[in-house]
Amino acid sequence: MKIPRKRAYPLDDIRRFLEPGPVVLVSSAHGGQRNIMTMGWHMMMGFDPALFACYLWRGNHTYGLVRRSRECVINLPGSHLLDAVVGIGNCSGAQVDKFERFGLTAGRAGKVGAPLIRECHANFECRLYEQRQTDAYHLFIWEVVAAHVAISPRLPETVHYRGNGEFMISGRTVSRRRAFRPENL
Amino acid sequence: MKIPRKRAYPLDDIRRFLEPGPVVLVSSAHGGQRNIMTMGWHMMMGFDPALFACYLWRGNHTYGLVRRSRECVINLPGSHLLDAVVGIGNCSGAQVDKFERFGLTAGRAGKVGAPLIRECHANFECRLYEQRQTDAYHLFIWEVVAAHVAISPRLPETVHYRGNGEFMISGRTVSRRRAFRPENL
Repeated sequence: MKIPRKRAYPLDDIRRFLEPGPVVLVSSAHGGQRNIMTMGWHMMMGFDPALFACYLWRGNHTYGLVRRSRECVINLPGSHLLDAVVGIGNCSGAQVDKFERFGLTAGRAGKVGAPLIRECHANFECRLYEQRQTDAYHLFIWEVVAAHVAISPRLPETVHYRGNGEFMISGRTVSRRRAFRPENL
Repeated sequence: MKIPRKRAYPLDDIRRFLEPGPVVLVSSAHGGQRNIMTMGWHMMMGFDPALFACYLWRGNHTYGLVRRSRECVINLPGSHLLDAVVGIGNCSGAQVDKFERFGLTAGRAGKVGAPLIRECHANFECRLYEQRQTDAYHLFIWEVVAAHVAISPRLPETVHYRGNGEFMISGRTVSRRRAFRPENL
């Protein structure tokens, strides 16, 4: 699969990729194990620091890895990776190495020990920022500490989960910049 | 503007509309005031009870209303409401009544005091479930206690914010049901 060329991206602008609500892949590593998980329950929570929250169910293999390592990478797959996204969400890292199984390339992150998925359009390196609600709600709040985004295309076609095995594919972009107050841009 | 006919919708299936990450409108009321806010930072957090989390900045007029009333309605606008969505996000409820300004119809909710926006494709009535992280992170966790969804179309065209005044419009739906393990559907 094609590996896009990437550049460092400003952390206070990562909403551009995450706020529209795409399915992302969470990569993690701890104690010689690594894993990838498909995730749709997440949201932006701040610009500076760049905060990002997500729900990770205790039953997922990834849950233990990120709880112990306190790190992960959030990877944004383009729609050409949809079958890998579905496959990753339907097997367990306790049984298989998902990088090998799905032909994905683990790259070295700059600031965290978790691997990044090089085939994805963007990689956001995360350190655990807040976990007081993890036991009660499976809620993790991450600080994004480094971002790498493909140079081209400017915006990828992404996949958004609807439940029931159905995905929405991102459509066209429209601008309403002129209707915004400058301080809201 | 057209008001769609709606039916009660199963609470454990509302992810269908919220998980893809659309911009939603938050309607609220307290002490004779009412308001609408445009919101993009939210996520699903559970099926049963149906939990939904969002970030509401303290500076928004809505913040005080929902903090005091402990209720809101999450309304899902179709893309034909984009200009209202942008307008609502660029003025303050402290100065204007947004229902009047944008020609929207306040409907009576069944289980909460906040009004619902009848022109929207779906309305999710919410009661505050958890606010221990509200002061530190502006995080609210809601239980959705009633859902009303338009009978047609089955899936609305929604808008998803990219920052910078740009919106992604939802595109086509594709199914990968056959690649899912039954327990994951």
